[in-house]
Amino acid sequence: MKPEIISQLREIVGKEYVFTEKEDLFCYTYDGSFLFEQPSMPGVVVLPENSREISRIIKLAAACQIPVIPRGAGSNLSGGSVPLAECMIIQMTRMNRIIRIDGRNMIAVVEPGVVTGVFQEELAKQGLFYPPDPASLAFSTMGGNVAECAGGPRGVKYGVTRDYILGLEVVLADGSITRTGASTMKSVAGYDLTRLFTGSEGTLGIITQITVKLLPMPQARQTVLASFPNLDQTAETVVEILSRGMIPSSLELLDQVFIHHIEAFMPSGLPLDAEGILLIEVDGPKNALNDQISEIEKICRDQGAMQIRAASSEDERERLWAARRGAFGAIARNYPTILSEDVTVPRDKIPQAISQVRKIAEAYQLTVAILAHAGDGNFHADILTDEKNSEEMNRVRQALPELFKAALDLGGTITGEHGVGIVKAPFLPWEAGREGMHVMQAVKDALDPQNILNPGKMFGNRRW
Amino acid sequence: MKPEIISQLREIVGKEYVFTEKEDLFCYTYDGSFLFEQPSMPGVVVLPENSREISRIIKLAAACQIPVIPRGAGSNLSGGSVPLAECMIIQMTRMNRIIRIDGRNMIAVVEPGVVTGVFQEELAKQGLFYPPDPASLAFSTMGGNVAECAGGPRGVKYGVTRDYILGLEVVLADGSITRTGASTMKSVAGYDLTRLFTGSEGTLGIITQITVKLLPMPQARQTVLASFPNLDQTAETVVEILSRGMIPSSLELLDQVFIHHIEAFMPSGLPLDAEGILLIEVDGPKNALNDQISEIEKICRDQGAMQIRAASSEDERERLWAARRGAFGAIARNYPTILSEDVTVPRDKIPQAISQVRKIAEAYQLTVAILAHAGDGNFHADILTDEKNSEEMNRVRQALPELFKAALDLGGTITGEHGVGIVKAPFLPWEAGREGMHVMQAVKDALDPQNILNPGKMFGNRRW
Repeated sequence: MKPEIISQLREIVGKEYVFTEKEDLFCYTYDGSFLFEQPSMPGVVVLPENSREISRIIKLAAACQIPVIPRGAGSNLSGGSVPLAECMIIQMTRMNRIIRIDGRNMIAVVEPGVVTGVFQEELAKQGLFYPPDPASLAFSTMGGNVAECAGGPRGVKYGVTRDYILGLEVVLADGSITRTGASTMKSVAGYDLTRLFTGSEGTLGIITQITVKLLPMPQARQTVLASFPNLDQTAETVVEILSRGMIPSSLELLDQVFIHHIEAFMPSGLPLDAEGILLIEVDGPKNALNDQISEIEKICRDQGAMQIRAASSEDERERLWAARRGAFGAIARNYPTILSEDVTVPRDKIPQAISQVRKIAEAYQLTVAILAHAGDGNFHADILTDEKNSEEMNRVRQALPELFKAALDLGGTITGEHGVGIVKAPFLPWEAGREGMHVMQAVKDALDPQNILNPGKMFGNRRW
Repeated sequence: MKPEIISQLREIVGKEYVFTEKEDLFCYTYDGSFLFEQPSMPGVVVLPENSREISRIIKLAAACQIPVIPRGAGSNLSGGSVPLAECMIIQMTRMNRIIRIDGRNMIAVVEPGVVTGVFQEELAKQGLFYPPDPASLAFSTMGGNVAECAGGPRGVKYGVTRDYILGLEVVLADGSITRTGASTMKSVAGYDLTRLFTGSEGTLGIITQITVKLLPMPQARQTVLASFPNLDQTAETVVEILSRGMIPSSLELLDQVFIHHIEAFMPSGLPLDAEGILLIEVDGPKNALNDQISEIEKICRDQGAMQIRAASSEDERERLWAARRGAFGAIARNYPTILSEDVTVPRDKIPQAISQVRKIAEAYQLTVAILAHAGDGNFHADILTDEKNSEEMNRVRQALPELFKAALDLGGTITGEHGVGIVKAPFLPWEAGREGMHVMQAVKDALDPQNILNPGKMFGNRRW
């Protein structure tokens, strides 16, 4: 990076907030994704404090045609926040103020660097609820969640990030600052730019302020864990529950690979001969839940459940969730590298999707464990491997496209909640089609004509 | 319209589906909006049967640079479907098939000409629910609802049209056909084009197929009607109910003008000295509702309600709603022209908004009645007038901008659910700002470089 650019950046944000040392830059070469490629070193990392500073940074980057990569906690799972060589990383974590929580209007305004879990804890103190719950919520940021349109287990009942974003402040590719949306529950004043920027993975603008819609905290919740002799019955139970007019707040499915690892690591009394378990949670008005749980238990029995455990206290609930929460840790002891793919299918296609995944795993001699937010058809085919085993990694690399193709053949999508980034950029055209790619490219060109905002993400290195 | 264009259109859709006679064309000169301008005659009206025909029509229009206006039931309230002189109207009502209702996956696929109310009735037979409920649902179409992102009373609990649209098929300005979104509950594959087209008012593409998310039909509902001595108490009750963790499925507020007209037209026992009434409905699991209704009644009493009537049967519920449903009819007997404005404010600003509206009404000597979907701050300031009284209409024309300005000053939006069209195009820049207009113009230029899709709508006749 040219010294005069560095000195201008120092002038904008203060010199302690511009990193140029190799040791510092190295920390920004990766994110939560597994990448087959070697990482690149950014040219500079800059930590602004507000949108005016970002505006000046972007104007500088635009004038010098330097690629800009916005970054929150770096927990991205599709390579959306990894740098290009000699790029400028805008690290958003200093902008971490909760600006306003307004219980009377059920909205809140936050800066992008606010950690999602911290925000949720603050809300809970006031009986308020921001539902999106990506697994990363303890460290991932609201800005990253919006840029990626993060999902999570609660999606089946509460939807995903986009369903809660009312308005944004965004710094555009020319450094101008705009506001989208409104602070009201309803607004149709012009194009839905709020949702265009939500999920745009930093390729259309830098999100600098977020207005979200809140819900009241549900009065109560109840949890059931059920084990089934095979995965078809497990998956069919999910469809049955949802077809009967109930919408659980979570419907998590884990397969036998997970069950065995959990039992080996932290024995929870799960039946080892079960091929699938469901962790089912309902929430809402207190006196509506017993009936729902009874009906869910009945459905589980009718579908051949081997074991049904209901939590009648918060302690018991925690114990049931411990199995689910410990699942990745249990597996990570044996497999140093886990590729968590997030293909999603219509929910009644989950059994076929699982059987396809297994065929692919067998063909490429890979170990795959399955964990699904089954209620919304979002399932994580977790490939358990070791990146040091380059021969096996080659097979992983060959298997992935087949996994995406299988999901699309079943009427699904290549990414339910992790985003496209660079990991899935080669496969997005399979889903969006030529016309869809043309529309996205036209939008990208319209808003970022110099292609300086997170270039290469979503589109790869080709133009449409 | 040139004869060779007419003959090509006849070749595409069949000659019985191309209208060129003045008597036919006249029927397409207006929509549900009140317009101060004289209507224009379209050059031709064409009724296609499928997206392939629309693709050919758009290619023809693009080649000849003829403006194209898509039209559903023409119930638009912002002039979005009124023609330009010599334009081509694409009337979508022949494309009215419900293609698929899939209860296992809780999705449905419809053509744009399906009437929303008809669709909802079909769903109800299977215990399924598509919540958006614009007042026009008995005749407005799904395509129109999506193009305008229609709202309705249930918005407070269930959101608006955009919250239910999973995917679209769209014919673009060059005649190519694309698909956006997915058939799954979650998808983040690329930009959120689905929501970019939703609410784009026919200016970015012609929507030819719609995939929607469904909910299970709520098990039960209960209704309460409460009257209050003044509007502040009425509005404060709304905030109180929502702050206590309940989300009613409707929270409709009517003012004294409505109460008096309803009582004169169809006596319902509403207290004539009440200045506001609330019609409150809750839905959900049966045994959760009694508690909610008791708490709501208590809040109403605490807030000084003069009368509280609860419906304990479906018949009684119908009687309570009759007052709300008959409200417009009651007023229309005395006022031939009603301009229903849909400014929206943060819900705790409703009292100030109402007082602003009254000041403006007084200043311009206008009669205004207020009906609000108060739960989401979306309130209809209905100006009661007579378009034959040109002196009064002049005052209406002067008062409207002040109404929009008042809403924006209170942190609101100029349109909660009716759209921009031509009616609010001059005022959109007040809300979106220069940068926002530039972004919208860039998107419009990117997707419709010749400006043939519903030109003049949303942007007016100026370029940004």
